[in-house]
Amino acid sequence: MLLRMLSRRRILPLGLLLFVAATAIPAAQDTAWLEPYREPVAKILAAATKDDFAWQRLAYLTDTFGNRLSGSQALTDAIEWAAAEMARDKLDTVRKDPVKVPHWVRGAESLEVTSPHHLRLPVLGLGLSVGTPSEGIEADALVVDSFLALEQRASEARGKIVVFNEPFKGYGPTVAYRVNGASQAAEAGALAVLVRSVGLDGLRTLHTGMLTYREGVPKIPAAAISGEDADRLTRMAARGERIRLKLTMGAEMLPDADSANVIGEIRGREKPEEIVVVGGHFDSWDVGAGATDDGGGAVAAWEVARLLKTLDLKPRRTIRVVLFTNEENGLRGGLDYRDRYRADLSRHVLMIESDAGVFAPIGFGLSGNETVRSQVTAIASLLAPVGATHVAATGGGADIGPSITAGRMPAMSLDVDGAKYFLIHHTDADTVDKIHPADLAKCAGALAAMAYVVADMPQRLGETTGTR
Amino acid sequence: MLLRMLSRRRILPLGLLLFVAATAIPAAQDTAWLEPYREPVAKILAAATKDDFAWQRLAYLTDTFGNRLSGSQALTDAIEWAAAEMARDKLDTVRKDPVKVPHWVRGAESLEVTSPHHLRLPVLGLGLSVGTPSEGIEADALVVDSFLALEQRASEARGKIVVFNEPFKGYGPTVAYRVNGASQAAEAGALAVLVRSVGLDGLRTLHTGMLTYREGVPKIPAAAISGEDADRLTRMAARGERIRLKLTMGAEMLPDADSANVIGEIRGREKPEEIVVVGGHFDSWDVGAGATDDGGGAVAAWEVARLLKTLDLKPRRTIRVVLFTNEENGLRGGLDYRDRYRADLSRHVLMIESDAGVFAPIGFGLSGNETVRSQVTAIASLLAPVGATHVAATGGGADIGPSITAGRMPAMSLDVDGAKYFLIHHTDADTVDKIHPADLAKCAGALAAMAYVVADMPQRLGETTGTR
Repeated sequence: MLLRMLSRRRILPLGLLLFVAATAIPAAQDTAWLEPYREPVAKILAAATKDDFAWQRLAYLTDTFGNRLSGSQALTDAIEWAAAEMARDKLDTVRKDPVKVPHWVRGAESLEVTSPHHLRLPVLGLGLSVGTPSEGIEADALVVDSFLALEQRASEARGKIVVFNEPFKGYGPTVAYRVNGASQAAEAGALAVLVRSVGLDGLRTLHTGMLTYREGVPKIPAAAISGEDADRLTRMAARGERIRLKLTMGAEMLPDADSANVIGEIRGREKPEEIVVVGGHFDSWDVGAGATDDGGGAVAAWEVARLLKTLDLKPRRTIRVVLFTNEENGLRGGLDYRDRYRADLSRHVLMIESDAGVFAPIGFGLSGNETVRSQVTAIASLLAPVGATHVAATGGGADIGPSITAGRMPAMSLDVDGAKYFLIHHTDADTVDKIHPADLAKCAGALAAMAYVVADMPQRLGETTGTR
Repeated sequence: MLLRMLSRRRILPLGLLLFVAATAIPAAQDTAWLEPYREPVAKILAAATKDDFAWQRLAYLTDTFGNRLSGSQALTDAIEWAAAEMARDKLDTVRKDPVKVPHWVRGAESLEVTSPHHLRLPVLGLGLSVGTPSEGIEADALVVDSFLALEQRASEARGKIVVFNEPFKGYGPTVAYRVNGASQAAEAGALAVLVRSVGLDGLRTLHTGMLTYREGVPKIPAAAISGEDADRLTRMAARGERIRLKLTMGAEMLPDADSANVIGEIRGREKPEEIVVVGGHFDSWDVGAGATDDGGGAVAAWEVARLLKTLDLKPRRTIRVVLFTNEENGLRGGLDYRDRYRADLSRHVLMIESDAGVFAPIGFGLSGNETVRSQVTAIASLLAPVGATHVAATGGGADIGPSITAGRMPAMSLDVDGAKYFLIHHTDADTVDKIHPADLAKCAGALAAMAYVVADMPQRLGETTGTR
């Protein structure tokens, strides 16, 4: 998950809102179309939750290949494995859409306090950061708790290593320090930047994630430190100590690498050209095992096709599972999808992203008009057995974002209990054991049932019964 | 804390038990001696808890010097600082008792899965382990969940790297795998051993700690892996995969290094030759910042003398604060104390160890006869304001252990809420932020009050009123 929490808060374009207001037709009462789906939905949920197949598949993926950063052999090998497994699942179509991806490598990293006393601190470079010279960068620290504080002390920043110690106030507000901290500090003349890890209180836990360099500002090395060490440096500075730091990072950007989106389909029996996409991303950061972000989401999406195939349920429209590549540091998978299928986007009935973790599901986020909302809400009412009945005000996801923007089709996201998400997000602790097999099974069931009904309902999602 | 949880379960020698049974005099009613201590105890507790002095001192120690393994410059420098600070506290006596300590260094460490797919796993060598050859040890893994399972599969262990994945069943039972795992595996012909980290479920958290090599068995390299990876390897083995591991450890033992126990005293006003010792250990493992194990315990012990000096309370007997060195990997501080003061041990009225963390205090552990127990229980009844009223069946500690064994004086330990202890024990997450300033203040107050009353009471602890 890159910036989903931010993108979910985006405002719908005004034109679309006006269109929605003008055309929305109350459809709450008109749910006769829903009745025939009670039985297949019950079957789908029962099949999803009868065993731990999805969790075992995720465990195999994450145990074997570990984390899967774009450009890594692990991602390449995991993609090959996934395509082969989809073929073994006997999906109707399995293919790899080739995508060139950025190839950033971390290299060796270290952080030392060289004064007032020598210490080694855990450190984890931010994704896409430039490296330091091989001898590292040694400089005095300037510790601040906010962009405002840096602004107020900007005259002290030149030649320093700026340390941002913003407490976690939720991902949306706080990730700005990870994303923009380097350029903000560089603009004030800093040589490097350290950012308090963006996440819940951990166990000296380091959270990586992508930064963005602003054009026209020097690119300086940027890394995450633990909350514990951010507080430590804050205390040391408050004591009036002059803190000297030495940061060494071997990060570099290599030429773009070959990768692919993996596609697996259940072909529609009546309108195969109309498509419901369900996707997650298959790449991860180069820490942990990419289980919650987003191996689990990808496997849950993949389960949609496998479960329908197992049950021999053939929807009217095509269901296309997409395991996107490069969500974390480039979004090239999502961009490729938009460009490759641009001509077909008008026939994309719905796109669903599964990238919020696969903890206990609570429902879906949805961006779509009122007719879409009433239909999705009706379908979600069938998902009480797995707890996924709630339909939140907005939905979407990073991978499907470019296609949604281009195609203006309804967008959904699977919503889950997010309590643990930012404890392990982009850390070495993102491993499969944090996911309960029953929760993942419920997520898969909820996605499969939602996708199936939308793909099979007589009217296209968002149209009222009998208009076609 | 080395093996305190084990040592607390030791059985009192039978002779001592018989002696206790024959001489114990019910003293519960005879508590007139306690009354004059209500006021000074209240003062001590108020002084201890009026600010966060102890926490700030601990923060300075752990922020500045970080972890303090025996032989490290950090420990040497921290000891110098502590002695200088004790002098600034104007304690009556401040000295360093020189102690030669083992000097084990970790060196570079890495663990890779080389087959079925390449992975890098977090690894942390066990204290006192031998290193590997510089090119590492590469071998197939044999994953077992217990010593019994290894015994049953002993014929498969030769030439392998044995992985012990014993779930945490409490420190006492499970630490046996860390302590004895290497020799158990070596006896079966293993080349190296990996042990599931001994602790509560963490965030890919690694726990180090000491091992013991059994005589006559080859010394093989031994390291801890995370619970997550232990489970991962167990799953891979259960799938029938042949797992190949490569372990590299640069560990080595250097010649003994110079260190010291730091001693600070409040001299007794009437019987200075009678001594109440309160101690913790100042060394730590070479991870985290040695805050809970045992910087906090050492600072709490140190607070006993500082608080009494601040309040100008002069007990009848001497209170001796000892910051022991080398508890973690040699116990040379505790052994030196016994040997250096052997002739004085009979005049040691009580020894208290503070090495169970400085979370919210609940009371004390006590090993002593029934008269001692009734007197200590009476004193503890005054500690309700800090919650330290409970007196548990046994007490003691690693550092004071040798002296207790030699001198047979009563032994106590500060008992605290232990819920978090084994989450951070011997890990990189053992940092000061895990300790609440108010909890540490209460611990210091409880220790100071207990030590003061025992040092000041008219009768020697364990004697009934008026027998002297």
